[in-house]
Amino acid sequence: MTDRHLKETRIDGYTAFSGKLLEVRVDRVDLPDGQETRREYVAHPGAVMVIAQMDNGKLIFERQFRYPLDRVFLELPAGKIDRGEDILDCARRELREETGYQARVWAYVGVIHPCIGYSNERIEIFLARGLEHVGHALDDGEFLEVVELSLDQALDAVRAGSITDGKTLAGLLWAEKIFRGGWVLPDIK
Amino acid sequence: MTDRHLKETRIDGYTAFSGKLLEVRVDRVDLPDGQETRREYVAHPGAVMVIAQMDNGKLIFERQFRYPLDRVFLELPAGKIDRGEDILDCARRELREETGYQARVWAYVGVIHPCIGYSNERIEIFLARGLEHVGHALDDGEFLEVVELSLDQALDAVRAGSITDGKTLAGLLWAEKIFRGGWVLPDIK
Repeated sequence: MTDRHLKETRIDGYTAFSGKLLEVRVDRVDLPDGQETRREYVAHPGAVMVIAQMDNGKLIFERQFRYPLDRVFLELPAGKIDRGEDILDCARRELREETGYQARVWAYVGVIHPCIGYSNERIEIFLARGLEHVGHALDDGEFLEVVELSLDQALDAVRAGSITDGKTLAGLLWAEKIFRGGWVLPDIK
Repeated sequence: MTDRHLKETRIDGYTAFSGKLLEVRVDRVDLPDGQETRREYVAHPGAVMVIAQMDNGKLIFERQFRYPLDRVFLELPAGKIDRGEDILDCARRELREETGYQARVWAYVGVIHPCIGYSNERIEIFLARGLEHVGHALDDGEFLEVVELSLDQALDAVRAGSITDGKTLAGLLWAEKIFRGGWVLPDIK
């Protein structure tokens, strides 16, 4: 399907803000009807998220303070991809650093785009099983708690409004389909 | 539960970028261990998303070009809250403007936070039923196509990687639970 009637085309642009974490780009673009407009968005290196299932069936969550919203969130483990880092290596590293677990069996789940209106971030989702606890290695300045929940407990938390993190809801949709809906994923060899 | 061991406290801050769409704030904060760090985030007015179900059971989706990722996304109808606007009024307005539908029956679903690492955005989700097509009223410079999909078609699209928008996956988790999982929502009177 050609999407010429929807597509916007870059004319030029510049980096309007370059911080420690965020980079904001401002581009001039041509709209499908030939009008010109301005698009502002965050340039992001991408991230991974891990659905980590213990042998007893429970999933690994984190409780972490998120400054922009000034409160603690219950969320699946996730973290930014380092420059040049392989996404599976990143998933292994984040799971280990944040939760202290290593996994024997990995599968690739899929990708989500959390914020398509104003960020180019993608989140690559992995499923990790065969977990073994080998100990934390949090980054300096990183504070979080590890929590184990069954899928039903997590879904109850969504219903009750205790899980509202978008990437985590997306991960739970995938998790339910994988664990109960017959969505089979090949293990990574 | 007290979260003092996780909480970060603002010292001061400034607006580092103020564009047409985005505002970026940079704050100095105290970490739980007393160290100081810097937090950068997008200040966002909030948004609504509508799970709009037709009398035949199908859901209303949009195909829309999203500039930050340079491609068309299949997504549930959504839009930003105007300053001072009631969230249900916003949901009615966005559904009408973007898809041309009005709904007789509305229910409040819940809130998600799409981008907790670097944005304070919240998305308020509504369920709309009793739809009547009354005609489009797109904003100037807004281009999109309206698509009807059954819940199963939408879930197949997630599995196939054709729906990757995070808010839409979160909405589909809610939709499946509401339509098939017994999560009952009271209608808004």
